[in-house]
Amino acid sequence: MRKNIIAMLAAAAAAATFSQQANAQEAPPPALTEAQAATVDRLIDAGLEDDLAWDLLESLTTEVGPRLGGSPAEARAREWGVRELKRLGFKNVRIETYEMPYWARISESAEIVSPFPQPLAVTALGRSRGTPEGGVAGEVVRFRTLLELQDAPETGLEGKIVFVDEPMARTQDGSGYGTAVRKRSQAAVEAGKRGAVAALIRSAGTDSHRNPHTGGALSGAGETAVPTAALSNPDADQLARALERAKAPVIVKLDLQVETAESVISGNVIGEIPGQTDEIIVIGGHLDSWDLGTGAIDDASGIAITTAAAKLVGDLKGKPKRTIRVVMWGAEEVGIYGGKAYAEAHKDEMDKHVLAAESDFGAGRVYRFDTRFSDEEAPKGKVFEAALRRLAVTPGNNMAFGGADIGATRDLGVPVVSLRQDGTDYFDLHHTPDDTLDKVDPEDLRQNVAAWAAFVYIASELEGDFGRLPVKETGQ
Amino acid sequence: MRKNIIAMLAAAAAAATFSQQANAQEAPPPALTEAQAATVDRLIDAGLEDDLAWDLLESLTTEVGPRLGGSPAEARAREWGVRELKRLGFKNVRIETYEMPYWARISESAEIVSPFPQPLAVTALGRSRGTPEGGVAGEVVRFRTLLELQDAPETGLEGKIVFVDEPMARTQDGSGYGTAVRKRSQAAVEAGKRGAVAALIRSAGTDSHRNPHTGGALSGAGETAVPTAALSNPDADQLARALERAKAPVIVKLDLQVETAESVISGNVIGEIPGQTDEIIVIGGHLDSWDLGTGAIDDASGIAITTAAAKLVGDLKGKPKRTIRVVMWGAEEVGIYGGKAYAEAHKDEMDKHVLAAESDFGAGRVYRFDTRFSDEEAPKGKVFEAALRRLAVTPGNNMAFGGADIGATRDLGVPVVSLRQDGTDYFDLHHTPDDTLDKVDPEDLRQNVAAWAAFVYIASELEGDFGRLPVKETGQ
Repeated sequence: MRKNIIAMLAAAAAAATFSQQANAQEAPPPALTEAQAATVDRLIDAGLEDDLAWDLLESLTTEVGPRLGGSPAEARAREWGVRELKRLGFKNVRIETYEMPYWARISESAEIVSPFPQPLAVTALGRSRGTPEGGVAGEVVRFRTLLELQDAPETGLEGKIVFVDEPMARTQDGSGYGTAVRKRSQAAVEAGKRGAVAALIRSAGTDSHRNPHTGGALSGAGETAVPTAALSNPDADQLARALERAKAPVIVKLDLQVETAESVISGNVIGEIPGQTDEIIVIGGHLDSWDLGTGAIDDASGIAITTAAAKLVGDLKGKPKRTIRVVMWGAEEVGIYGGKAYAEAHKDEMDKHVLAAESDFGAGRVYRFDTRFSDEEAPKGKVFEAALRRLAVTPGNNMAFGGADIGATRDLGVPVVSLRQDGTDYFDLHHTPDDTLDKVDPEDLRQNVAAWAAFVYIASELEGDFGRLPVKETGQ
Repeated sequence: MRKNIIAMLAAAAAAATFSQQANAQEAPPPALTEAQAATVDRLIDAGLEDDLAWDLLESLTTEVGPRLGGSPAEARAREWGVRELKRLGFKNVRIETYEMPYWARISESAEIVSPFPQPLAVTALGRSRGTPEGGVAGEVVRFRTLLELQDAPETGLEGKIVFVDEPMARTQDGSGYGTAVRKRSQAAVEAGKRGAVAALIRSAGTDSHRNPHTGGALSGAGETAVPTAALSNPDADQLARALERAKAPVIVKLDLQVETAESVISGNVIGEIPGQTDEIIVIGGHLDSWDLGTGAIDDASGIAITTAAAKLVGDLKGKPKRTIRVVMWGAEEVGIYGGKAYAEAHKDEMDKHVLAAESDFGAGRVYRFDTRFSDEEAPKGKVFEAALRRLAVTPGNNMAFGGADIGATRDLGVPVVSLRQDGTDYFDLHHTPDDTLDKVDPEDLRQNVAAWAAFVYIASELEGDFGRLPVKETGQ
């Protein structure tokens, strides 16, 4: 999950009500047939016993491990996806390739040079420029928030290293990330504009471990962006204390070595459960991960949950009404390249895309169900809500974000839903070396599979569609 | 705290009773005068309000940071100790130097080469030999426990990398460490004897973060010991899963580069509150830390607690009856060089050493008070126990370990006590990059200061001594 989640968070913050906006409408909501309702219950029962999602999750994180967008490891992940989808009986299994620019870290280190010499745990932000070999050193100037830096004069930091120390709030819905990620996106440019030679940020994360959080900095920032790294939270604390205690300037050296390529091949992996009609329900997660961890919560869990849920629906007798298309998007973290490429490649069949949904917020329990249907069709959300109630999922609103990888699809008019996951601990792990399999609770994962299986089945079978959303000009 | 704690743990495990062994004796225990008891209460009150320990802890971990035994950073820590002891009014402040061999890591990395290529988070064990430049690669052979490796034939692992996957139990009293540390001490030798080219161990730690735990391997193991590193717990999980899932040998490459020197200078920092007699109470912690973290719980906390407690006693009106000597031992982690040097340097005044105690188990609350007095004097433990009861400290036994740095002193006959700290979370952090200031709870730290102040005062003022312990031949 990356910075475009900001859109969702802003929307969520703006929503004054947690009930369907369309509640005001008087039309009675549609309902499942008795047979369909019984099938939903059987799917939920099966989801709560599911072992496939765990097996997929373990397999991807172990046999592939870290899989940076555009890297050879991501190519191995695509091979893995094709192998698993075929093994599970999905049809039309294929890789849809696209080109993308490449960025990878080679090495990274930082240290307080004086007056308290010691190493600092840092990681380069995605797409950060490298420093000259041997690093850059400068006096550290601390800003408590990004706003303080933005309010500073447009010169005056020549030769300095900017330190944006803004902390992040722990929240269930991930709304703390919206603010924190602005710091990550913009520190490089704001520091560069003012003459700084580098920037450090306090990690956009809620933990207290020496594992800094990477994540994309602003793309296309050009020459004004300076090399930028995230400090772990304990290291940010340490640097702040050093500044407080030092009787002389605090000098830090930062050494980031990176490699880039203008164009490499990446791809989306696709598999289908063909339906009785040419209408399509798109679900999935992103196949790539940051390089530091094994991407268990971000986003092998989403891959595993949606694939296992689709498999449960596919195992029902007879074809589903609509085609269920599982997409394992590539290169999300480094620029949502897979999500954009998918929308571009499929723009001519967007009118057949009835609904899209992505799982990309870890493996915490689904606690809320949001839709973004047309106003007229919003009452259909109640059918899903009713089915999910036994899983302790509360009704949400009709302002669903959907997911970064379906942003471009949504912007072409396709309705989306969000099965909102409990993210209280998500940003302890997100984009760090600690994003590993042991952090996933198998019971929570099963609850996700159950909720997704119910959602996918209803989305496939429900009479009528979910309307169309306004088409936006940009894909994002 | 290092491997010699094994001795304590074995002793603790063997103890069938938590009450004083000497309970059977009929003599009434000695008691404090009313004035003394009132002073104890005032010291506890002051300890519970103490800010000095936190300030010392923050200062040492921030202004010096990591301070490996024998390193320039440890020399800066000694300067820090002298400065602080003088600032606080301690007398006879000095550094007592000694020579020691030096070992430091330069770089370390590991990766699964095939069939699932990916990096592994490792750290070299202390005193490990380095690998040839570029590392060594070999097929991984897993042993679930050290015992399994020890039971394996004395050949048959030629060219292999041994992986000892033994986990560690989480316990309040640290007793899980006794078993875990054997694996850390002996894997290098046991692997080498059987022809292996390197060894990996699951970290001796209870956390699930990608921060492997360093710590000393067996010293003086000579040529049979192979390069050995600890995997973080998630990485050990990952390697075990890779072995389970692989259809071909799992090949790992390990690259450890280290530096050593036959002799460098280190030292103990000493300060005193002179008493009315020439009798001495020795307290302290160790000044060095492992290089990965800033040594907040291991053992800046011990330095801070004992110094702050001594300062509270020193601030009382009039001289204490006995001299209170605070020792900041050097180079504990890498071989208890400071503790041994202290006993050697002071062996001629050991008969003046009435009692010794070290704080070296983090900053968790003191929950139990153990003594090791002569059997005749064991009832005096009750005086301390009674005073500490209001701090929720429970009586222990007369088999106290005391601390690694006073092991050599104890072996020369000096009685010791242990203010046992809650170590439930201690091995989440111990010897990792995560041993940082933010992990210490200021309220727990104050409870320690209060307990230590009460203990030090009573130890200084109580009529009569605590007997002598049997003298052992070796210093350890």
